[in-house]
Amino acid sequence: MVDFNVTILGCGSAKPTLRHHTPSQIVSHMGKLYMIDCGEGTQMQFNKFKFHESQLDNIFISHSHGDHCLGLIGLLSTISLDGHRFNEMNLYVPADFEKILKQQIDFFIPYTDFNIHIHTIDCQQPTLVLSDDHFKVTAFPLDHRVPCYGFLFEEQSGNRHIRQECIKQYNIPFNEIKRIKEGGDFTTSDGRVIPNEELTTPPSPVRRYAYLSDTQPMMQYADLLRDVDLMYHDATYCEGDEELAYKYYHSTASEAAEFAKACRAGKLLLGHFSSRYGQEDRLLEQASRHNPNIMLANEGLTLNIGTQPRDH
Amino acid sequence: MVDFNVTILGCGSAKPTLRHHTPSQIVSHMGKLYMIDCGEGTQMQFNKFKFHESQLDNIFISHSHGDHCLGLIGLLSTISLDGHRFNEMNLYVPADFEKILKQQIDFFIPYTDFNIHIHTIDCQQPTLVLSDDHFKVTAFPLDHRVPCYGFLFEEQSGNRHIRQECIKQYNIPFNEIKRIKEGGDFTTSDGRVIPNEELTTPPSPVRRYAYLSDTQPMMQYADLLRDVDLMYHDATYCEGDEELAYKYYHSTASEAAEFAKACRAGKLLLGHFSSRYGQEDRLLEQASRHNPNIMLANEGLTLNIGTQPRDH
Repeated sequence: MVDFNVTILGCGSAKPTLRHHTPSQIVSHMGKLYMIDCGEGTQMQFNKFKFHESQLDNIFISHSHGDHCLGLIGLLSTISLDGHRFNEMNLYVPADFEKILKQQIDFFIPYTDFNIHIHTIDCQQPTLVLSDDHFKVTAFPLDHRVPCYGFLFEEQSGNRHIRQECIKQYNIPFNEIKRIKEGGDFTTSDGRVIPNEELTTPPSPVRRYAYLSDTQPMMQYADLLRDVDLMYHDATYCEGDEELAYKYYHSTASEAAEFAKACRAGKLLLGHFSSRYGQEDRLLEQASRHNPNIMLANEGLTLNIGTQPRDH
Repeated sequence: MVDFNVTILGCGSAKPTLRHHTPSQIVSHMGKLYMIDCGEGTQMQFNKFKFHESQLDNIFISHSHGDHCLGLIGLLSTISLDGHRFNEMNLYVPADFEKILKQQIDFFIPYTDFNIHIHTIDCQQPTLVLSDDHFKVTAFPLDHRVPCYGFLFEEQSGNRHIRQECIKQYNIPFNEIKRIKEGGDFTTSDGRVIPNEELTTPPSPVRRYAYLSDTQPMMQYADLLRDVDLMYHDATYCEGDEELAYKYYHSTASEAAEFAKACRAGKLLLGHFSSRYGQEDRLLEQASRHNPNIMLANEGLTLNIGTQPRDH
């Protein structure tokens, strides 16, 4: 199966601690890396977990709070200093972050051998922001104190699979196979039309990963995220701290669990941990009462997307 | 003896590695902390080595290259979020860094409970930039690709010490002692003037720490830095890489050693290590041929200033 993983580089929140770095993750798919958020120190975490920038062409920033973006200039600066890169680097950032980002790039990395392409995200509805032959990314607005976006990473729907026995049975030539995989019927040498449904089986199901941080619960996305294989969700606060979660536009672990259950997510990964709690066991315990398929994020954790057993 | 230490938070150079963080140091004197440079991740190092921001009122930035200043906004942002600080924070920065620094502060930390006072450094000659009852800091221009300053941290010259036996011999009243310590003579009840030199011994020698990074060797400062107790100096390159050192306005370890010897520095601490060398043993070996009082900097190293034995 094609690789499709997520690795946590940082799952803390605004204040880095000795246990958790500020937010950043790497989604890997078919040898390409996609970074989500880039808090201070992300370049060190990226190196520590043996990633290489030659595979990284796309960085997504959820919002302009420092813990989610203050590592971006350092990362770009180091890549520029290395002098090995000539491919374009694509940054997908909320509109309110664009001006200061450009000011920082102009000041700290005025000369690079590669182009930095800033894609501004400014939408009220889920919007496709990246799409290639194999992969696509949709941004969707979250509910935070500043413009903030979640990201849905999905494989593109693949071709149908041709039944090997039909190739022999109908003597299908090699140059017809691509067309049939794409849904075409086949006409035999004696003029008989064999419908595609008989020749093929459906495409493999696409695998999907959803990232939602920082936000209040967004039940209106239950349809968009229905049956997502893995979800990372803001779990800044414990039960009992709902007022803080509401005040600062974050979620409790239990709220995250209820939302993931409504989405029928295959697995929920709790993150964006507040520095106020010494450890996160309580978050896991509280969330697990609502939804059994839950893990705590941790620096260095890599999860394969779409291979988790589903209870529902 | 009053505490006067330096602790290395990071002694790497532009590219952080798994071994070395980007530059930052803490000078501590009489319970106050003075930060020099603030590369990405400095706030994590500051926490790791158990420093507390309540003691930190002064941060000195040598120059505007990212490895020396990209951690500043994150540090200030975390201090602001903590909400415990009301004292002014003083930032001493080269003039060319002021505009982008203000832009970043305005964007990332628009509301703080404390005042951020930016002191611009823009001088061609050594210039006193901080002075209080006990301590002073002089900035002096270095030779780098952008405006860059070294810093000399010095204790203020203390009072002379009164000879205890004279107090008894001349029946010196308590309220005269401060004046005598400050250099005054004493007139006895029978009108005899006792000169200060007889009543006192000289003040304790002031201890001094010099920070020079990033720079080519600056032999013109041999007088300014004469007999400095401890010197931290740019040692980015090995022997054989002099051309690179010259091209990028850095120093080799051997050049640093020769300069420290010319200054008669009590001890030299080599730092700002290039990521191109796997380890720094070679730098130490090369530098030690010129000057025996040399150490390699390392994260977490704390040196007491002024207690090193001197060979010269």
